Amino acid sequence: MKLYSYFRSSASYRVRIALNLKGLPYEYAAVHLLRDGGEQLTPEYRKIGPDGIVPSLVDGDIVLQQSLAIIEYLEETHPNPPLLPSLPADRAYVRAIALQIACEIHPLDNLRVLKYLKHELGVTDAAKDAWYKHWIDNGFRVLEARLASDARTGKFVFGDTPTIADLALVPQVFNALRFNVDMQPYPTIQRLYDEAMRHDAFVRAAPGQQPDAE
Amino acid sequence: MKLYSYFRSSASYRVRIALNLKGLPYEYAAVHLLRDGGEQLTPEYRKIGPDGIVPSLVDGDIVLQQSLAIIEYLEETHPNPPLLPSLPADRAYVRAIALQIACEIHPLDNLRVLKYLKHELGVTDAAKDAWYKHWIDNGFRVLEARLASDARTGKFVFGDTPTIADLALVPQVFNALRFNVDMQPYPTIQRLYDEAMRHDAFVRAAPGQQPDAE
Repeated sequence: MKLYSYFRSSASYRVRIALNLKGLPYEYAAVHLLRDGGEQLTPEYRKIGPDGIVPSLVDGDIVLQQSLAIIEYLEETHPNPPLLPSLPADRAYVRAIALQIACEIHPLDNLRVLKYLKHELGVTDAAKDAWYKHWIDNGFRVLEARLASDARTGKFVFGDTPTIADLALVPQVFNALRFNVDMQPYPTIQRLYDEAMRHDAFVRAAPGQQPDAE
Repeated sequence: MKLYSYFRSSASYRVRIALNLKGLPYEYAAVHLLRDGGEQLTPEYRKIGPDGIVPSLVDGDIVLQQSLAIIEYLEETHPNPPLLPSLPADRAYVRAIALQIACEIHPLDNLRVLKYLKHELGVTDAAKDAWYKHWIDNGFRVLEARLASDARTGKFVFGDTPTIADLALVPQVFNALRFNVDMQPYPTIQRLYDEAMRHDAFVRAAPGQQPDAE
């Protein structure tokens, strides 16, 4: 398999964790999101990823986009170790947490949106930072309450083994820490992040460990 | 089952189509996203949907959030008719299309984001409209190219029966039409929308058909 990735991309990071957890070796193809206006927007990359976003995963002659769809594909084609619980209600619970991060937080705070705010709407850096933190806080507040109270929370979001929810959570926390979000109000989220970062598959997937890290 | 829904909510609309396609009767609980500052933000609703967003689906003592997680749950608990193809690569393809809409377009154009632009950033109505159309066009351009060229496109996104991709596509097109987006550049998307709207399950799920329609 070949993963088109950018070291700091949260969506790429999710897939890197999944590949590591499932013990699947892969070739790393770096796509620099900032260099030359963004390598993901070149006609060359668009042959692989027509969306102009990372990650893309190539598995033989199958080309896959969208991190959560890629992870479900890996789950179906390489079921062990599982990244989803066995009962439908529990599967829905961990998928909902992954989707809350992937749909309610991350899309609002990614690079192209911050760029649009700055260049098209001319907002100040302070207003851009406030926007960033608003959507993180908005999402983390709900998530913290849920994770702190749900009996299913263990060392990971669902019990003591990682699921797709942790694959979404860890990169989002990494991102928040990089932007100096105050994590004090989110002790459960912080704890789950710290627990995950003791796990080799998470450590090896971290941005700083990638060949294109800066 | 009981669906907490707002007639115009795209995410609620996705789940309504799924329930109809699977022939599952449900009670409709209207949550008005605008009245009194938003009924979804009341402590009463938050007991069901702590995120303060719709939809939520209650199935016995199971409470579910996030439309795509709910649809996967329905798929697992009521597999017929299937809303996902059988092969992992095809499942990933339709999931990626659903996620492209749910993660790259919809989160940027939903009500609370448009509110933030207006009230917190003080952008003009014209700039707000331009923002809305930018993210629709950005997403639809990629989607049109993909759907126009992929051999799997039929009457629906994947062949001649609806999948999760159509459940995401139809509400997004409805939304775009409501905001007068020019659909001329997207003939395949428009055709797929028109085909779907000949299908009773889609018609009955449309905003105008809901008990809380205005």
